[in-house]
Amino acid sequence: MIIDQLNEPVPGTSLLSTPTGDAYTDPEIFAREQAEIFEKMWNCVLREDALASPGQWKTVSVGREEIIVVRTRKAGIKAYYNVCRHRGMRVCTSGEGKSKTLQCGYHAWTYALEGDLVAAPNLTSMPDVDRQEYGLKPVHVRTWLGYVWVCLAEDPPSFDETVLGEVSTRFGEVESIDNYGIEGLRCGETKTYDVAANWKLIIENFMECYHCATIHPELTEVIPEFADGLASQRKNGEIHGASFGDDVEGFTVDGSSGVGSLPAIAPGQDRKYYAITVKPQVFINTVPDHVIIHRMFPVSHERTIVVCDWLFMPEVVEQGLDVANSVELFHRVNQQDFEACELTQPSMSSKAYERGGALVPSEHHIEEFHRWWAERLGGDVPVPAASAAAAVSGT
Amino acid sequence: MIIDQLNEPVPGTSLLSTPTGDAYTDPEIFAREQAEIFEKMWNCVLREDALASPGQWKTVSVGREEIIVVRTRKAGIKAYYNVCRHRGMRVCTSGEGKSKTLQCGYHAWTYALEGDLVAAPNLTSMPDVDRQEYGLKPVHVRTWLGYVWVCLAEDPPSFDETVLGEVSTRFGEVESIDNYGIEGLRCGETKTYDVAANWKLIIENFMECYHCATIHPELTEVIPEFADGLASQRKNGEIHGASFGDDVEGFTVDGSSGVGSLPAIAPGQDRKYYAITVKPQVFINTVPDHVIIHRMFPVSHERTIVVCDWLFMPEVVEQGLDVANSVELFHRVNQQDFEACELTQPSMSSKAYERGGALVPSEHHIEEFHRWWAERLGGDVPVPAASAAAAVSGT
Amino acid sequence: MIIDQLNEPVPGTSLLSTPTGDAYTDPEIFAREQAEIFEKMWNCVLREDALASPGQWKTVSVGREEIIVVRTRKAGIKAYYNVCRHRGMRVCTSGEGKSKTLQCGYHAWTYALEGDLVAAPNLTSMPDVDRQEYGLKPVHVRTWLGYVWVCLAEDPPSFDETVLGEVSTRFGEVESIDNYGIEGLRCGETKTYDVAANWKLIIENFMECYHCATIHPELTEVIPEFADGLASQRKNGEIHGASFGDDVEGFTVDGSSGVGSLPAIAPGQDRKYYAITVKPQVFINTVPDHVIIHRMFPVSHERTIVVCDWLFMPEVVEQGLDVANSVELFHRVNQQDFEACELTQPSMSSKAYERGGALVPSEHHIEEFHRWWAERLGGDVPVPAASAAAAVSGT
Repeated sequence: MIIDQLNEPVPGTSLLSTPTGDAYTDPEIFAREQAEIFEKMWNCVLREDALASPGQWKTVSVGREEIIVVRTRKAGIKAYYNVCRHRGMRVCTSGEGKSKTLQCGYHAWTYALEGDLVAAPNLTSMPDVDRQEYGLKPVHVRTWLGYVWVCLAEDPPSFDETVLGEVSTRFGEVESIDNYGIEGLRCGETKTYDVAANWKLIIENFMECYHCATIHPELTEVIPEFADGLASQRKNGEIHGASFGDDVEGFTVDGSSGVGSLPAIAPGQDRKYYAITVKPQVFINTVPDHVIIHRMFPVSHERTIVVCDWLFMPEVVEQGLDVANSVELFHRVNQQDFEACELTQPSMSSKAYERGGALVPSEHHIEEFHRWWAERLGGDVPVPAASAAAAVSGT
Repeated sequence: MIIDQLNEPVPGTSLLSTPTGDAYTDPEIFAREQAEIFEKMWNCVLREDALASPGQWKTVSVGREEIIVVRTRKAGIKAYYNVCRHRGMRVCTSGEGKSKTLQCGYHAWTYALEGDLVAAPNLTSMPDVDRQEYGLKPVHVRTWLGYVWVCLAEDPPSFDETVLGEVSTRFGEVESIDNYGIEGLRCGETKTYDVAANWKLIIENFMECYHCATIHPELTEVIPEFADGLASQRKNGEIHGASFGDDVEGFTVDGSSGVGSLPAIAPGQDRKYYAITVKPQVFINTVPDHVIIHRMFPVSHERTIVVCDWLFMPEVVEQGLDVANSVELFHRVNQQDFEACELTQPSMSSKAYERGGALVPSEHHIEEFHRWWAERLGGDVPVPAASAAAAVSGT
Repeated sequence: MIIDQLNEPVPGTSLLSTPTGDAYTDPEIFAREQAEIFEKMWNCVLREDALASPGQWKTVSVGREEIIVVRTRKAGIKAYYNVCRHRGMRVCTSGEGKSKTLQCGYHAWTYALEGDLVAAPNLTSMPDVDRQEYGLKPVHVRTWLGYVWVCLAEDPPSFDETVLGEVSTRFGEVESIDNYGIEGLRCGETKTYDVAANWKLIIENFMECYHCATIHPELTEVIPEFADGLASQRKNGEIHGASFGDDVEGFTVDGSSGVGSLPAIAPGQDRKYYAITVKPQVFINTVPDHVIIHRMFPVSHERTIVVCDWLFMPEVVEQGLDVANSVELFHRVNQQDFEACELTQPSMSSKAYERGGALVPSEHHIEEFHRWWAERLGGDVPVPAASAAAAVSGT
């Protein structure tokens, strides 16, 4: 059980080790991650307002499965495996649509939006085919922050303890995020990135700012403290947000002013940037006038799709205000980050990385992610020595 | 031995189960299928008249092998592995050709059309190299219905019991197919389909008509009884062909008349469509004025090449009569079927299909195919419970 | 241990067997070849004069690793794994460049050309991070014949016994190759071939001339004795070079004169072609006025990159003399050879090759390569019976 060694420091230094390269290159470890993490935890899959009216549906990827998410007439939003119960064909064969029922295009088995089998050729001559039993196989669904979250586990983990728990750990109390009113925001822009890197490299990258000075010139211009390499979550026991530079008017690519201010944010949230990682696949970034949310969809051990939404006040989107400078800032950050991840992935199989890499003090909190990951996988995974005694000031 | 469970019904219903999803997605099961089915049984590989004169040859795929089929001067058609006995290079490097000998282009080892090694540089100084022993490795070959059939097994199964047996099971007596004179027909059109689906999905699709009403509007217009979802082989103990609709003049995309009538068909074969599956890779479709023959060539667990020939009376082809309406009907059927198979393949790996799908009563005869498949593979394959007691009237 | 059977002849003949087809198609055997051969032996990776001045670097592939080769200011040429010691990113992200240090673009860890870690953000606050210990991971490096050779083994094999040993075995004494002054030559042309074949097929092809009459018309025109199929290394105990034809003026595609004569070649080296295989990945071809050197870079069990340099006297390159006829001859030989290898690769997985192919007497020396290969891999590899008693005259 390599996890037992997680508390040991790298010999001769105070640095902590990362997992060994195998963790990022082994298809079997990736399959375990899909089974034990993505197919057992809550996944944020799409914006709820994308399904505005009853009958609207979209298909999304969760782990290795394709899931239909549909707005029903009476039961709110439901989600199902996109697999006909008869011979298995994809029931929904385009990415999105609107219909009164969900009908398989092969033999016309027809399901209510609420999942039951309601019609099929000669179904009446098969009276022992129970229509609920033979309905679409459902998955658990929740909405929060204006997003639909689904969980494929038969017995899902507590949404409060996992998803909301991550947020309250960051903000001290989950209510602080409520000030941003994310549920009521509108999506002003969505960009999709096809990243040739393991999903864990993307999380690790998001969790530290030691790289900011090197690869994010625009971001460090707006948030000067990031140039010091610290992505501090707390300072002196207080929740810490990263401050805008003195001359900076807004969270935009050139520091020009943004699009106003979200109405309910607290004074301490003004001119501040906060970031939260909601494991396993969501990043939330808040600034005074908008919110940026990343959703990750791992495809293979070396490929991850990342979808990024820029959310603004409804009137900003409705009035068509120019948000290009706001979008451009984090779009560049995304591109810079994902390029770094893609240039890191190939080294993961190198003999020079067979004992893993090193975390500097300002990255030591990433070890918590590695420990969480190893525990989810049962511990028997390639994580080399690392020190738990390494909670370093400022991180 | 999961095969022992084949006689059990799906709990709570009278439906039979299909094999589990693994059967369609596991590369190891596919390798066993290649070894135990395609490389041990008779495969229909090409039309005999494609090799009109001595020296003409073509290369074809059988299982995982490339085979040369050649018309010799004195010994009829022969077939060999396309592997030079010296260092292994492909002896024939284009798909077809005509030559007096088969010469390897690497070191000029030269084989007679009948297979013996007849020349090689310095061969005379290697007197112990037996020219028959070092000839091309032969495979068994037969001709029937104007097609060349090959079998890679050292000791092939009986052609009569396997290939002809399938036909007589369908037609009651193998002679009935003779009325169509398929051997003397000419190929008016050949279309090749590259299908992203497991070969078994394609066979299962061909074996049932429960899908006809949903995906084959043109076909059910011509053969109205298919709209009922029954592809009956027998009715009241009699051989059953599917009847043309009353207003239908021919087996064409618009029901317009075809190109006459094959001279020797029986009265009971007029205005009828018959279909036969010759396992593992041939479908024969007969109508009064032409015959449609599919050959399948599995490439991987999720890819199959299907070649479809439309065969007409020689004078139809020679006179250049318009057969477009005849060809278009089954070409559309093929496209519709293969699209359904391609939309079914991805679900085979879903957790929602891990216990397989269901066969409705009018599909119950497909279980015979599953049983045959499981037996060919030795029984130790993922076939869940299914009921043998389910021979359903009309199927 | 199949290697124990290497001394047995093919039953009924005096021919020797090649390894079985698995040796050329099994990804696991290929992985062992990478680990035991390419990642443990000396590899010729690039021309030394490509790194003319301090700070110039190139990245090259060795086995499954990417290596930086750089000219330092004081320590000559050095080579390192292209993996940052911090989080593993590729330090050099383009194929070549020139810089004063080697800086990782992710977190700005910065290495001296000599390898030590010399700077990193906040490095001074991490005093226990030893700058040598955390320098780039070095690999062994040598120069010879004007090329850089690297070895990834911790404890490399003797360069003299392996690389130079191959040359002296061929030339009787390693000094004979010195006459060509290869170190001082200049590269007039480099061509890269992406060959869809296992690297061993390429070596086997290079080691025999039994194929020359069939596939190399231009070469056998220039070197008529190759038409007999013998690539003799010795005759009557003497070192043997292959003679130009009587009417041939130079080693050119049309037999026209070349570009003079290398100044120091011995009389016995005039109008002669010599070839040497330096296992595992170099072929050296010498003719009076130029030298052709192939370097192989195996990518997978069925793909190999081959880079071929044509080296001429410096003045030939500087004055821009026309070397097209010289280059064209071996370029065609390369194309002809690699096409043969590509047409051989697919048969390696055939049942007809499951016991391997045959070596004719003039190819029997290739068995030494097979024996060497089997020993490098530990003997437990698929090599069928072959006769060690088969040293055949003229080979």
